[in-house]
Amino acid sequence: MRTIFQNVHVVTVNGENEVLQNGAVEVLDDRITYVGSEPPKDTAGARVIDGKGKKALLPGFVNGHTHLPMVLFRGGADDMELHSWLNDRIFPLEAKETPESITYGALLALAELARAGVTTVNDMYTQNRALLPALEKLPLRATLSMGLFGQADNAQQQLEDNVRFYHEVNGALGGLVRVGLGPHAEYTATAPFLRQCADTARKLGCPLHIHVSETKKEHVECKARHGLTPVGLLDREGFFDDNQALLAHCVWLEEADMDLIARKGAAVLHNPCSNMKLGSGFAPVPGMLSRGIKIALSTDGAASNNSLDLWEEMRLCALMHKGNTLDATAVRAPEALYMATRGAALALGYEDVGSICPGFQADLCLVDIDRPYYHPMTDLVHHIVYGGNSRDVVMTMVAGRVVYEEGRPMNVDLEEVYDRVQFFYDHLFNV
Amino acid sequence: MRTIFQNVHVVTVNGENEVLQNGAVEVLDDRITYVGSEPPKDTAGARVIDGKGKKALLPGFVNGHTHLPMVLFRGGADDMELHSWLNDRIFPLEAKETPESITYGALLALAELARAGVTTVNDMYTQNRALLPALEKLPLRATLSMGLFGQADNAQQQLEDNVRFYHEVNGALGGLVRVGLGPHAEYTATAPFLRQCADTARKLGCPLHIHVSETKKEHVECKARHGLTPVGLLDREGFFDDNQALLAHCVWLEEADMDLIARKGAAVLHNPCSNMKLGSGFAPVPGMLSRGIKIALSTDGAASNNSLDLWEEMRLCALMHKGNTLDATAVRAPEALYMATRGAALALGYEDVGSICPGFQADLCLVDIDRPYYHPMTDLVHHIVYGGNSRDVVMTMVAGRVVYEEGRPMNVDLEEVYDRVQFFYDHLFNV
Repeated sequence: MRTIFQNVHVVTVNGENEVLQNGAVEVLDDRITYVGSEPPKDTAGARVIDGKGKKALLPGFVNGHTHLPMVLFRGGADDMELHSWLNDRIFPLEAKETPESITYGALLALAELARAGVTTVNDMYTQNRALLPALEKLPLRATLSMGLFGQADNAQQQLEDNVRFYHEVNGALGGLVRVGLGPHAEYTATAPFLRQCADTARKLGCPLHIHVSETKKEHVECKARHGLTPVGLLDREGFFDDNQALLAHCVWLEEADMDLIARKGAAVLHNPCSNMKLGSGFAPVPGMLSRGIKIALSTDGAASNNSLDLWEEMRLCALMHKGNTLDATAVRAPEALYMATRGAALALGYEDVGSICPGFQADLCLVDIDRPYYHPMTDLVHHIVYGGNSRDVVMTMVAGRVVYEEGRPMNVDLEEVYDRVQFFYDHLFNV
Repeated sequence: MRTIFQNVHVVTVNGENEVLQNGAVEVLDDRITYVGSEPPKDTAGARVIDGKGKKALLPGFVNGHTHLPMVLFRGGADDMELHSWLNDRIFPLEAKETPESITYGALLALAELARAGVTTVNDMYTQNRALLPALEKLPLRATLSMGLFGQADNAQQQLEDNVRFYHEVNGALGGLVRVGLGPHAEYTATAPFLRQCADTARKLGCPLHIHVSETKKEHVECKARHGLTPVGLLDREGFFDDNQALLAHCVWLEEADMDLIARKGAAVLHNPCSNMKLGSGFAPVPGMLSRGIKIALSTDGAASNNSLDLWEEMRLCALMHKGNTLDATAVRAPEALYMATRGAALALGYEDVGSICPGFQADLCLVDIDRPYYHPMTDLVHHIVYGGNSRDVVMTMVAGRVVYEEGRPMNVDLEEVYDRVQFFYDHLFNV
């Protein structure tokens, strides 16, 4: 499979943040093989896509933290604080989930992600095997971790099942699927369970995905319980020793937490929209950036967002921290784009994803910039971050394969998905 | 002219916030004449638009505060604090403006607004006569105020010119255009000039549009200069006595300021994005709402946004105040929609705009909700505010006349506008 893009503005997000005006990109099988100003002369066997100077080619977006099937509850649990949202609304709804509802929820989520140009997701959910039929139909790059509740009676079985899932599924779909461990949070686990997860992940060499210091309540209660912040506790239990720790939220980090995360090379998964919507607060992102902490922008689940749109998260991230610190330079547009593409890929441990460079995975999105809000053409990266719109994505490609084009996700009957998802909401969940 | 919408979900934003599932709306000339569950049987002479249950009809959005031609500088002055942004960048650029650049800038802005479903704007700019050719081509409902700089040598001529402009233009385009006075801000005026503006507006019976307490610097310096907050000073100079005061920003209001604004019935024009982007801060919107202060959501100019998209402002408003107050109920979805439609219209003094009710102006936007992020259908207002997208607008109507449909604004050659605007950016402004 060979694809040539020509006359496209190439937003490389490479080391120099180059933007090529009217450039060209060649894709062979799953890789980017050429990036330059002139298209290859030999177009044999290639699909040639001509942007006519009115399209931009971006790295596919990387969603650092989500719960795909939560689209099933979209709009049904709004304007509520996190702990009542979770305990009074989401957990009771999720208890009614079936494998079928999870598959259809994931399909709806993947369709939404693909149309917004998102090519990679890092997911945490339960009954994860039901995600696979959805990913087979609409194959995005995905890291899947089971949400493990370490205070439950069956905590050991949960962990064992996640390990079994790792052995069954890691590397599936031609390497697109990766499996991690997902201890849900400090406040739903015991310290020994956290240590056990850290030890297990180290043995498997897989990511450790966990919610950390999302709310002030959680942060303060952990200190009262353990005499340590959540990050301090995770450190004590071995999360940062030869482990790839993915720390979702980190809203209430203290200076020492950030110093520790930076020193240990752990990654923060930053959820601008969800943290505001649930009244959790503003993560100290400027302090993370100044320490060089790896950050991945993330949507969280659609029940606390309510879309799965990294364009929105970029804009929110570039805005909220300026407002919160009264510093208009707090998160600059190129930093926001980096945290949604190359920076997010590196945070999740994907070395060859997130930039448009030869040798990288061909995870791409093509964007129609023939719209009022991209004019005048002053700075394309600024236009994308501050004024751009996910609905301008006209094609999304994962590992060289088109998964969305001209309004339709590939291989998905959206009408059927909408009908099933509505049925589940109305009848399975009895909302 | 008669138009009938049928099988559309009608988001009325009426007193009861009704949403009619698969309802119907009739428009005759410039007015809404019918809203109900069944379409009129007699369709003689009518254009019938069938939403097939997959479209929503909303009141057109009302943009409470903007500077239309500033789209010319979009993306060219980002990640800068307000006062250096204004003095080092925007004011020098604006000094190079010509009537032609202003007309084309306004055309680009109006095209962008129309495609986002915005039907009313409250604008402040200079050389306002150059806005009219743009509004003649793409007629949105508009209140135009000249930005008056009361410390300039020619302050008196500026005010006289604004008065002349009032007499020339107020009520133009069949009543769509209204003229107000626009003293720019406390910090660019003298106290006697502010009083003169208040007296003049009272005599004319026109709105008084001014920037107020946008930055901490401005707020603190006013107190040092006058021993009063900006709102206190405006009160002393007669802004709230038989006047319709439109107060843009109000980020640094104190409790007493809010009490005064509520008592006097003045309106606040709230700019979520711009206030964050320029590092100005978070306006105390929850405190305004609890006092019943009239609030209009606003984009500000595109140089500090960078789009003119009320959908974004709704979402930002519903999110930022939750994050800032750590209260997930701070601004609820229906409140955000109200501040962008009916509430904004009332704030600007339009009594018959902003709701879908019989007798109201036919300012409407039709939205395609056949998209993943509107599913499952749980709560349409929540979907619109938290997950909706301005690019889903498929038709915009102002006073019964279609100004945007199926990707194209009426009567505007977008290619020509893009070319001219690029020319101005590259050559007139020599950026």
